[in-house]
Amino acid sequence: MASNAGRRLNIDNINPHVRAAKYAVRGELAVKSEEYRASLQSGATDLPFKQVISANIGNPQQLDQKPITFIRQVLSLLENPALLEKGDVLVSHLGYKPDVLERAKKLLASVGSVGAYSASNGVPAIRQSIADFLERRDGFPANQADIYLSAGASSGVNTLLHVICANEKSGILVPIPQYPLYTASLSVLDAACVPYLLDEQKNWGTDLATIKAAHEKATAEGIDVRAIVIINPGNPTGASLAEADIRAVIDFARQERLVILADEVYQTNVFVGEFISFKRMLRQMQQEQPGAYDNVELASLHSVSKGMVGECGHRGGYFELVGFDPQVQAEIYKFVSIMLCAPVIGQCLVELMVNPPREGEPSHALYTQEYNAIFNGLRERATALHKAFEQMEGVECGTPQGSMYLFPTINLPAKAASAAAAEGRTPDEFYCMRMLEATGVCVVPGSGFGQKEGTLHFRTTFLAPGTEWVGSIVRFHKEFMETYR
Amino acid sequence: MASNAGRRLNIDNINPHVRAAKYAVRGELAVKSEEYRASLQSGATDLPFKQVISANIGNPQQLDQKPITFIRQVLSLLENPALLEKGDVLVSHLGYKPDVLERAKKLLASVGSVGAYSASNGVPAIRQSIADFLERRDGFPANQADIYLSAGASSGVNTLLHVICANEKSGILVPIPQYPLYTASLSVLDAACVPYLLDEQKNWGTDLATIKAAHEKATAEGIDVRAIVIINPGNPTGASLAEADIRAVIDFARQERLVILADEVYQTNVFVGEFISFKRMLRQMQQEQPGAYDNVELASLHSVSKGMVGECGHRGGYFELVGFDPQVQAEIYKFVSIMLCAPVIGQCLVELMVNPPREGEPSHALYTQEYNAIFNGLRERATALHKAFEQMEGVECGTPQGSMYLFPTINLPAKAASAAAAEGRTPDEFYCMRMLEATGVCVVPGSGFGQKEGTLHFRTTFLAPGTEWVGSIVRFHKEFMETYR
Repeated sequence: MASNAGRRLNIDNINPHVRAAKYAVRGELAVKSEEYRASLQSGATDLPFKQVISANIGNPQQLDQKPITFIRQVLSLLENPALLEKGDVLVSHLGYKPDVLERAKKLLASVGSVGAYSASNGVPAIRQSIADFLERRDGFPANQADIYLSAGASSGVNTLLHVICANEKSGILVPIPQYPLYTASLSVLDAACVPYLLDEQKNWGTDLATIKAAHEKATAEGIDVRAIVIINPGNPTGASLAEADIRAVIDFARQERLVILADEVYQTNVFVGEFISFKRMLRQMQQEQPGAYDNVELASLHSVSKGMVGECGHRGGYFELVGFDPQVQAEIYKFVSIMLCAPVIGQCLVELMVNPPREGEPSHALYTQEYNAIFNGLRERATALHKAFEQMEGVECGTPQGSMYLFPTINLPAKAASAAAAEGRTPDEFYCMRMLEATGVCVVPGSGFGQKEGTLHFRTTFLAPGTEWVGSIVRFHKEFMETYR
Repeated sequence: MASNAGRRLNIDNINPHVRAAKYAVRGELAVKSEEYRASLQSGATDLPFKQVISANIGNPQQLDQKPITFIRQVLSLLENPALLEKGDVLVSHLGYKPDVLERAKKLLASVGSVGAYSASNGVPAIRQSIADFLERRDGFPANQADIYLSAGASSGVNTLLHVICANEKSGILVPIPQYPLYTASLSVLDAACVPYLLDEQKNWGTDLATIKAAHEKATAEGIDVRAIVIINPGNPTGASLAEADIRAVIDFARQERLVILADEVYQTNVFVGEFISFKRMLRQMQQEQPGAYDNVELASLHSVSKGMVGECGHRGGYFELVGFDPQVQAEIYKFVSIMLCAPVIGQCLVELMVNPPREGEPSHALYTQEYNAIFNGLRERATALHKAFEQMEGVECGTPQGSMYLFPTINLPAKAASAAAAEGRTPDEFYCMRMLEATGVCVVPGSGFGQKEGTLHFRTTFLAPGTEWVGSIVRFHKEFMETYR
């Protein structure tokens, strides 16, 4: 048998920055939940639950969310263009509307085959369609040459951090709690994460004084802070930023010469207020004070993974650059070229997301019906889950505002903390592990996203249908509190 | 207007390792060829050619290669499973065979929705199907737990290099000439590329003495050489390695404790001899000398992008690990988790590639006919192009052996070298630029892949149909030689 001594690679000599990276969303709890799922599938009856609920990850179509018909019909034609030769059969027998066929033909005319590489930054006609969408959304023009298609927003973040960070002194302001893509990518890059706390009392909004203090402290320590990440609507918090907060961040970025990385993948998952893009706000401020904001550099990211589209398995997304130096953009182009291009069918899906059927077009009614049903379903589930949390002793959770998550505070008894320490776990990890074992519901401990010292949380999606799993969390919590009181 | 001075990022302060990376396959020539294509499309008549031929990149479906019907029919059903409810219409009106429907149902049963994230390392049933294929191909068992689905082989290489390279002293032996993914990725990672020359006289095979000398030199310079990259069949060379060469590399890797990275994406593009996988040879050597090769670590990569499948736009691929430490594999799993998973439709395409219709199944005849027609077409075009090169003064090119490329030597007159220097170009860049301007054919200069000092080459695919473009290269070359003689 192979012995460790003889191998070239071992845990102590591989890339230490990869080793240092943490990614809790798919960590120990997720692995254990998959083991439970496999046990149940192979007929196990000794578990105290009958199904595993993966509330650890925003994976809409793994749970109840159905793909949107218009989108999938077009994709089926892109995969098999020979079907277009039988347009009459598609319409008369298979429920395809004429605008589905038209859209597929139009996309194929610009894409060629979805099996061919596209330009490194994406199919030109798709970039133009995104630019048109941005103009409709924001009321300001967008240039297709500043848009880069990516394999989901994650790949876009990876590209941007790779170009922005020059060495281990390069720092990026990252909200805490945050989606761990940011800390993990900065670990791998060996760049500095400069954490700034979000304000739970302000519904997890940004607090400028806190951001300033974090920036000052890092700068004093010799960190060259280069960019600020804003996740709006928030992940894991669900927060939806107000206009004043966005303006304050842009002002601060201008003053301290920080690139703004606006992660806006939940822009359609907003229940309270309205989504305001950083691009729109920046352009508005540029109009109000000509010349003052011209040097602000903004990269904003979007994705097909979330929202009502929910097509994360297709790995589609894009980012738009505003105010970047053309030589820097050329380096970004070269960097994305090394991986050739984003999946072309995913690029087409981005086009379908930003350019849905319009009023008067044959697919519009069904599209709207499906879209609204998903939106309302998510809001109802968020509300039901929130109601359950309100009844649970020691649990505090603000009104659901957006994204796909709730991030409640849990106040646990001291005895639970000792029991956790005895297992070598943080109290929130301990709590989530017990919840998984008792209910089959997999959530992520707050420590996986970062949390203010002395506080404990967990993140759960509200994607799973039904109320049974919510009831099982309520029962588990009651028993947990009784055991450790 | 934004001035450079006010921006945070400029060419001098971004990541110097990204800036240092070179990727000629999509460099200046490729950009210029796209400009020509756009000019022609908008009606330009002042160019000396009527079409642009992208012979710079192995992009089969951009040129003449049609997707395989079985594959695209199944993919269309995965994108729109509602079609399966009308199986009779698919079969009676749309030419779908029953095994297409069966395969789609089977894949959907294990995948769920192609719009959902899969496990980070890929859908378990697809990994099992790949393991079954490897067992059939090599005659030795494979374990699905050692297989990782990736977004094309490029993404797999990126993962492996990230984990293997610990710091700037970590070195990787890379063949010269090579596919520039390797040098570019090592630049970005700030790890050391340890080049070893392939032997043009031996049809671009590996030469062990050369590899040893490169390893010794790097080690003497303080480089910690950790792995050796072998591209077989070769890119850009088309070489197909003989068993003795593969054995010699495995022996050397064992002796010097090097991880073997076997890039085998052209495994079905073999015209001369047969493809021998590193996995099969390693297992055979382990059988012949029990215990002696147990510590050899091998990662072998494959992709849907090349071969007769040619679906590079779908970004599908996988790698198999042999002999790796489980703790190291856990870090690889975590690393791929950060980007969530490979595109799921691309994963399904991998399954269709490794598990095509069998004899007796309804789709088998058409599949075989299409597959063979593509194979024969590629061989015919390679032969025709090779014949043209043989007639060209100062051009030397070995018999086509495999992959999708020819990589001829060009002996250019001294006057051409001076003219190139006056333009700040290498002579091969100068030659390829003149070729593009005169013919619309875009090829890549040998310097983009690395070449032995004092030699000049270019790489061209032989994917483009017809003979007109070949004739235009012959005419261009004659005129070029006359001008610069």
